[in-house]
Amino acid sequence: MLTLDKIYHASYVLQSVIRKTDIIHAPKIRKDANVYLKTENLQITGSFKVRGAYYKISQLNDEEKAKGVIACSAGNHAQGVALAATKNGIKSLICLPDGAPISKVEATKGYGAEVCLVPGVYDDAYQKARELEKEKGYTFVHPFDDEDVIAGQGTIGLEILQQLRDVDVVVVPVGGGGLISGVAFALKSLDPRIRVYGVQASGAPSMVQSLEMDEIVCLDKVSTVADGIKVKEPGENTFKYVRQYVDGVVTVTDDEVSTAILTLIEQQKLIAEGAGAVSVAAVMFDKIPDIEGKNVVCLVSGGNIDVTILSRVIKRGQLKMGCIDTLAIQLEDKPGQLKGVSAILADLGGNVVSIHHERASEDSDITDTILRIGLETRDHEHIRQIHQALTDAGFKIVNK
Amino acid sequence: MLTLDKIYHASYVLQSVIRKTDIIHAPKIRKDANVYLKTENLQITGSFKVRGAYYKISQLNDEEKAKGVIACSAGNHAQGVALAATKNGIKSLICLPDGAPISKVEATKGYGAEVCLVPGVYDDAYQKARELEKEKGYTFVHPFDDEDVIAGQGTIGLEILQQLRDVDVVVVPVGGGGLISGVAFALKSLDPRIRVYGVQASGAPSMVQSLEMDEIVCLDKVSTVADGIKVKEPGENTFKYVRQYVDGVVTVTDDEVSTAILTLIEQQKLIAEGAGAVSVAAVMFDKIPDIEGKNVVCLVSGGNIDVTILSRVIKRGQLKMGCIDTLAIQLEDKPGQLKGVSAILADLGGNVVSIHHERASEDSDITDTILRIGLETRDHEHIRQIHQALTDAGFKIVNK
Repeated sequence: MLTLDKIYHASYVLQSVIRKTDIIHAPKIRKDANVYLKTENLQITGSFKVRGAYYKISQLNDEEKAKGVIACSAGNHAQGVALAATKNGIKSLICLPDGAPISKVEATKGYGAEVCLVPGVYDDAYQKARELEKEKGYTFVHPFDDEDVIAGQGTIGLEILQQLRDVDVVVVPVGGGGLISGVAFALKSLDPRIRVYGVQASGAPSMVQSLEMDEIVCLDKVSTVADGIKVKEPGENTFKYVRQYVDGVVTVTDDEVSTAILTLIEQQKLIAEGAGAVSVAAVMFDKIPDIEGKNVVCLVSGGNIDVTILSRVIKRGQLKMGCIDTLAIQLEDKPGQLKGVSAILADLGGNVVSIHHERASEDSDITDTILRIGLETRDHEHIRQIHQALTDAGFKIVNK
Repeated sequence: MLTLDKIYHASYVLQSVIRKTDIIHAPKIRKDANVYLKTENLQITGSFKVRGAYYKISQLNDEEKAKGVIACSAGNHAQGVALAATKNGIKSLICLPDGAPISKVEATKGYGAEVCLVPGVYDDAYQKARELEKEKGYTFVHPFDDEDVIAGQGTIGLEILQQLRDVDVVVVPVGGGGLISGVAFALKSLDPRIRVYGVQASGAPSMVQSLEMDEIVCLDKVSTVADGIKVKEPGENTFKYVRQYVDGVVTVTDDEVSTAILTLIEQQKLIAEGAGAVSVAAVMFDKIPDIEGKNVVCLVSGGNIDVTILSRVIKRGQLKMGCIDTLAIQLEDKPGQLKGVSAILADLGGNVVSIHHERASEDSDITDTILRIGLETRDHEHIRQIHQALTDAGFKIVNK
């Protein structure tokens, strides 16, 4: 059974293993509330998962330790279990679907785990892990539905109360619900006045729907940029704790999550993964009730974002802020036209990053050509100036 | 005169204003040394500059405070001075060249400064600021060559010694030399055993050359991605302190800086600007002597990187890691060809992000077409597999 004692014990066990991550004031996130970030993206392994995994493994008996642990994950849980096992001096085996990115496989191996690549998808890897558990006697470390794991994550709640006075609201990402179960249990046990909210991705709202139906709902399909909380159903324990201790669970869209990731980069110099940024997104986009003038802690749960996703998020932000522009200009097919356009761009300080010049597309006259230019610009006003100058010089901008 | 007393006093004055930024262990930066990061990118305003600016302004007399301060900068110094003045309850005027990005102008205004946009480049803005200083009696806050400013930056040295035991080596970015002067003075005064190294960009090695010539050198031209340390000449005071207290100043290339920025993102979940990452680059690329087995602190001085630069750094990293690929395939000009290529890409999990299909370029037969495909891939091995599968199916990859 989960008790405050157990969470304090986890905190003691973890103290020489994990980082007590900083709480950072983020005044620009919202002007009407005091927003703080609990930066578990700066935790070792880049996510909070190592807390629960380490505490779980530390509590195994000698026989269990001798046999080792097994887990199934392509993400933060894998790295948490791998490092936790290594630091406990025991073996770990992580089952991964064989299409997992090499970078994740290497990271997991890097923390000392053995990796078993299973043909198929996540569910196949999970089945394989449960088979090996039975066959070999390994202990299966569940990513969330386990009281020791929950107690480990709950240590974050204790730290928040040590690090910040007069906490009013704590906002926590929710996938399977392990993190919020531990954090809410700790906070509410010590100070029932504190409100705790969960945040899920709108494409994977399993806890939200389970609360609505008042029973565990398993979603057919989940889809979100926040892959760390892309979970089809809550656990039995976590559902119970969330129902009892959490004030509400809200959802955010992928678009809101992307904006939060970019905001954390620009304003706080922090990399958060999608799952880590949902708490910030919920606060930015008014999903949490009654936070005006309050001390609000957003738990930024992890920072292990794929560089490709990061690059897309940034590109989207650049478009939004007017830092890039794509121009399509219809030119008469005669010499000197490109020079005219280039001169205007150079004068106005637009930085050309790509050019494509093509003849006779369907949407132009047969004698014309289309010049497509990718530009780095300063802002929307700069883009407007460039368009104006081109138009003034007689160039026809199409498809804008 | 700079004294340890003055730095302790600055530390006292700053304690309620600035963040005592965390020191974070970064074990993957180098396996053969204990590398730590002093995270001044997580300082308020996103850089250490607020320390020196605030202390300088706090020491003005009432008459000077009543008139206000002036500074010239398009970057971190501007934001530091603006916030420091606002927190001291006095006026600040920041001169900027009129081509400065709107985002920087807005950020500076956001911290409470008045902004004066000066036609021309940095030097013009500087001239204007010095004119206004004389004309209006504002106090000019120098970005580095000022003993109060240096004392403010020196507080970082005190914090490092409070936060970490047995520091062996501290590595510090060098532009004009204000930061390293204060930090080296504090460290060497308290523990002369600690070695302090400076790092400049190879495109702006003013301090390196000044040390070599044993006199202040002014560079004609400076060019580097690390715009925060793109400084043509050291100050008189800073040159003196660096000569006396610093063990050596090394340089890193833009390529090394970019790799360090990307490494900090991937491994540490931290955004550093170019100037902030040079210390990490120097340690990664073996520029600092005798660090094996040592406790090495890299001062990450700031995180205010332009999103456009960040995007380029990430794209470069993706290419290097095989996360993106551009294929040019020569196709016979007949129906069904695109389908064949698409099927292979889909089977192998290559994610198409752009397609361009063109006929009859110079480097192909008149009846052929060239298909250019932008792909997101997993790694170099994945790219190799895709190329192999296309070649096996009879497609001709050109220009690779």
